[in-house]
Amino acid sequence: MTVQTLDDVRELAAQLRVDSIRCSTAAGSGHPTSSMSAADLMAVLLARHLRYDWQRPHDPANDHLIFSKGHASPLLYSMFKAAGVVSDAELMTGYRRFGSRLEGHPTPILPWVDVATGSLGQGLPDGVGVALAGRYLDELPYRVWVLCGDSETAEGSIWEALDKAAHYGLANLTAIVDVNRLGQRGPTELGWDLDAYAGRVEAFGCHAMVIDGHDLGEIDKAFARAAGADRPTVILARTLKGRGFSEVQDREGWHGRALPEPMAERAIIELGGERHLTVTGPRPEGGTPRAWPSGEVSLPRYELGAKVATRLAFGQALAAVGARGTVVGLDGEVDNSTHLEEFAKAYPERYFEMYIAEQQLVAAAVGLSVRGYIPFAATFAAFFTRAYDFIRMSAISQANIRLCGSHSGVEIGADGPSQMALEDLAMMRAVHGSTILYPSDATSAAALTAQMADRDGIVYLRTTRGAYPVLYGPDETFRIGGAKLARSSPEDQVTLIGAGVTLHNSLAAADQLGQDAIRARVVDLYSVKPIDTQALLDAAAATGDRIVVTEDHYPAGGLGSAVLDAFNDAGHPVRIRHLAVQGLPGSGTPAELMEAAGISAGHIAQAARELLGA
Amino acid sequence: MTVQTLDDVRELAAQLRVDSIRCSTAAGSGHPTSSMSAADLMAVLLARHLRYDWQRPHDPANDHLIFSKGHASPLLYSMFKAAGVVSDAELMTGYRRFGSRLEGHPTPILPWVDVATGSLGQGLPDGVGVALAGRYLDELPYRVWVLCGDSETAEGSIWEALDKAAHYGLANLTAIVDVNRLGQRGPTELGWDLDAYAGRVEAFGCHAMVIDGHDLGEIDKAFARAAGADRPTVILARTLKGRGFSEVQDREGWHGRALPEPMAERAIIELGGERHLTVTGPRPEGGTPRAWPSGEVSLPRYELGAKVATRLAFGQALAAVGARGTVVGLDGEVDNSTHLEEFAKAYPERYFEMYIAEQQLVAAAVGLSVRGYIPFAATFAAFFTRAYDFIRMSAISQANIRLCGSHSGVEIGADGPSQMALEDLAMMRAVHGSTILYPSDATSAAALTAQMADRDGIVYLRTTRGAYPVLYGPDETFRIGGAKLARSSPEDQVTLIGAGVTLHNSLAAADQLGQDAIRARVVDLYSVKPIDTQALLDAAAATGDRIVVTEDHYPAGGLGSAVLDAFNDAGHPVRIRHLAVQGLPGSGTPAELMEAAGISAGHIAQAARELLGA
Repeated sequence: MTVQTLDDVRELAAQLRVDSIRCSTAAGSGHPTSSMSAADLMAVLLARHLRYDWQRPHDPANDHLIFSKGHASPLLYSMFKAAGVVSDAELMTGYRRFGSRLEGHPTPILPWVDVATGSLGQGLPDGVGVALAGRYLDELPYRVWVLCGDSETAEGSIWEALDKAAHYGLANLTAIVDVNRLGQRGPTELGWDLDAYAGRVEAFGCHAMVIDGHDLGEIDKAFARAAGADRPTVILARTLKGRGFSEVQDREGWHGRALPEPMAERAIIELGGERHLTVTGPRPEGGTPRAWPSGEVSLPRYELGAKVATRLAFGQALAAVGARGTVVGLDGEVDNSTHLEEFAKAYPERYFEMYIAEQQLVAAAVGLSVRGYIPFAATFAAFFTRAYDFIRMSAISQANIRLCGSHSGVEIGADGPSQMALEDLAMMRAVHGSTILYPSDATSAAALTAQMADRDGIVYLRTTRGAYPVLYGPDETFRIGGAKLARSSPEDQVTLIGAGVTLHNSLAAADQLGQDAIRARVVDLYSVKPIDTQALLDAAAATGDRIVVTEDHYPAGGLGSAVLDAFNDAGHPVRIRHLAVQGLPGSGTPAELMEAAGISAGHIAQAARELLGA
Repeated sequence: MTVQTLDDVRELAAQLRVDSIRCSTAAGSGHPTSSMSAADLMAVLLARHLRYDWQRPHDPANDHLIFSKGHASPLLYSMFKAAGVVSDAELMTGYRRFGSRLEGHPTPILPWVDVATGSLGQGLPDGVGVALAGRYLDELPYRVWVLCGDSETAEGSIWEALDKAAHYGLANLTAIVDVNRLGQRGPTELGWDLDAYAGRVEAFGCHAMVIDGHDLGEIDKAFARAAGADRPTVILARTLKGRGFSEVQDREGWHGRALPEPMAERAIIELGGERHLTVTGPRPEGGTPRAWPSGEVSLPRYELGAKVATRLAFGQALAAVGARGTVVGLDGEVDNSTHLEEFAKAYPERYFEMYIAEQQLVAAAVGLSVRGYIPFAATFAAFFTRAYDFIRMSAISQANIRLCGSHSGVEIGADGPSQMALEDLAMMRAVHGSTILYPSDATSAAALTAQMADRDGIVYLRTTRGAYPVLYGPDETFRIGGAKLARSSPEDQVTLIGAGVTLHNSLAAADQLGQDAIRARVVDLYSVKPIDTQALLDAAAATGDRIVVTEDHYPAGGLGSAVLDAFNDAGHPVRIRHLAVQGLPGSGTPAELMEAAGISAGHIAQAARELLGA
């Protein structure tokens, strides 16, 4: 049947509630009451405002719907049933089951889901990224609708998102906050103080509308007004958790609990029984995304021996890669440090300043990747720790994002430990499907930056503050997953492995050892993940398993771990001498700090000598 | 001389500017212009409002001063000089130098510094923790003054902090925002739109005051009003970056740059030359903190074989540990899941609900630890990734905080990957000086929870969702840094290592192997960091270096890495069979997901058989 009038929508809302109960009760877990509070909102949206071609989920003209409150997945999947793309059978037997695409929280395994949610406060920041794409890149009139919970407004990331939405005038973004007043463990901080919410929203530059989230007419008008607004809109909807079933409605103790069978039966009766409406909502307006012309990428070339910081090479290379029209730059208000400014100067239309809001920085990248753009987000490596939950979630979203972290390690010198990334390699290596690149010179930094654009998943480039000699000629190639012999001879007695500044220290150590007639092989481990296991095995074989690995990072989880894991996985256990940052560093010169940390050339040479009994 | 009148304060402010320039120029780096904008604010505070006994920095009645804009360290250290606790010589020769306590960004190596700052948006959340201690625990009238930058208000964590400050009525907290309109790379998002800032502050429930940050009289009145306010106050001070030196004042391009010598000389002349005033500001009111009585800790006792979740044991043990009057509980709105609610019920006066704001959750713990309390903060293990920057910084703060992360790994089942912590061990292991505990049964979980209270640094306890058999009797002891032989015999052929649910899987695997007459030793690696290297060496020696390590975590940086690192550090390389979560998990039952991840008892037994060629 066709759902058109608000009376039809009322039936649809009842169906969404019933189906949310049915599927969660069948699964034995899930969040029916959090679904029921938002069912009226979503029924109106689905039937009358979401312009979406359900048969063509990748139509660029489609609106976007993101459940920032991902635990309301029963409602979302019930909408998919009502849209005719998920069968009732799949909903009842698939929800939360092993191997099913109807996971406990939505993920983009489903073609109608843009991003994975379930860690609260992320769907709205992701939506800001999609809306940026719509307004500034695609230049299409699609709207981004985000359903938020009230509890998640306690996350600072929600305010980072609204701030950026207002700053960029994202009138194409509508957040719908389901203010059901009850969180997981009891009442939320603001309860039903809708005015308090509205005051915050308006103060952050967005348009706030307070409505009764169960009044279909009010909802309908609010959505229509939001669609015509000249600012991002936040619809604050007063709702009842568990709305529609008197035994749970507005009661504590029912968060995240499926109704037991007999209760579910009573609820379905109270809601008027099962229904199997199929809805055809509005169609997208059509149109095609703006085509951003692409030219040839001509990477910068560096003179052997010239001193160039890898962070500068990243920026210059990205400015070159920007010739590809889908590359986008995102800055965390430090682009003169990361050198993303090189890109910003070249392609200001495809550059977005996120200010000091690293969570939104990463989320914007995720949102842009939803629309097929190739985002590069850059800040100090240390400050990506601020966004770790977002990075972790983007792996679940199977997003393709590129992150560049500059100023890594004690090598930064006088600024001190707050600015040093000494945990970032461990953090990034643990992420599912991540790629980690850590160039030592400008040539490799540029080459790897170019390759990042074509690499799927979370791709992380670690750059160094200081300028060090260019080691490779401009035509050298760098395969992701490879390694370079920066120095070798048939007589090598020991292998020194490094990346970034520690590669330079390893080369200096090799020089020192050479004065004692000790031949050292030096391996440039520019690809930390995936790692070139064969190169490690070859080096071990050539130098009698004598290996020194040095990294400007704390001992756990970085280069040393990557090497140990590789040898272990290859079935060739090797004892490595592992030099990493010991103790809590302070300020000083790079040389003083590397000496104190135990990762200087002198330490490396000494470790090599000890391995050789020399 | 005594600084009393506002004319005296004007001289003091000039001295602070001059000294900020002198020390940063001497160091060749630093942020003089960011110091100069706030010099008038801090001069008034130091001379007339900060009630602080500089000779007794640990006097509990002292006010607290936190530089959330840590890069203004030249200003802070110049204040220390003016207070007479740092000499001019130390300031000129120490700032940013190796081995000096005057680091590039402040750290608590200095007795007058509460917390490390430099990652923006953290000092204010930390200050909320100190103010919570003052109002609710110490019950002392000290005030917490936090100097913030304007750029850092883009961080969501600032709004988490103001939200909680208002929620808890922290009238003892004053944030002073130095709105100098220029960030690192150019103008800030809101520039000098002080009204926009004020609107946000008021909307978040705090009292906003807009002032001219260079008008000493206005500043003085604002501080006096803040001290008498009934709400937290945010003073929004319009300032000029580089104020006082015409060549840089209000100009772009001077962030984070020391003035070259000739410019510094001209600046000092323009500012009226060097001064060496010493200030004696107001004294603390005196008083002693409320004494919270302590009783005997009587830990819960569990029956061998009873099925009890470690998360429940944590909660019950913490309720017991709460008999110690300085233990405090902090919840991220999930205490019915983490079971922190057991503590909340027992000690509601020492329990703080932080709602879903994990950054503020950790920052509150840091702030409470400043005042010597023993905070335990709990949320889902996955969601501590949200606070990684705060955790990293708390290590630099040398804070003593305890974190409990529940619902770790694919074992959680149907909720899916957004709720699974599969990176937390890697993240926590990388942190400097961290301790990581991962109990497998209720007895060990309770015993370790009790020991956490006396452990310094960042102490992380990982708990499991499901209920598994109690393995140890109530009198068993668990040393941090130890391990247990959960099963052993003189004839063991292979060692199975696990923790949490994988210890139970390893025990089940040992049973399976026993049916084939294969004797397996099982090691309970409940202390992941520090690790019991000797126990690992002993097990390796006893079982011919045949070792299977299994973890409910992604492959990089967790248990497997900890074991490999330990063997490597001991100079005894061993090839381990390492079973960890492969691929991106979905929903399912715990058994299905562990099977799919490759960490089930069957997988462990199979790996052991392969090691034995069986």
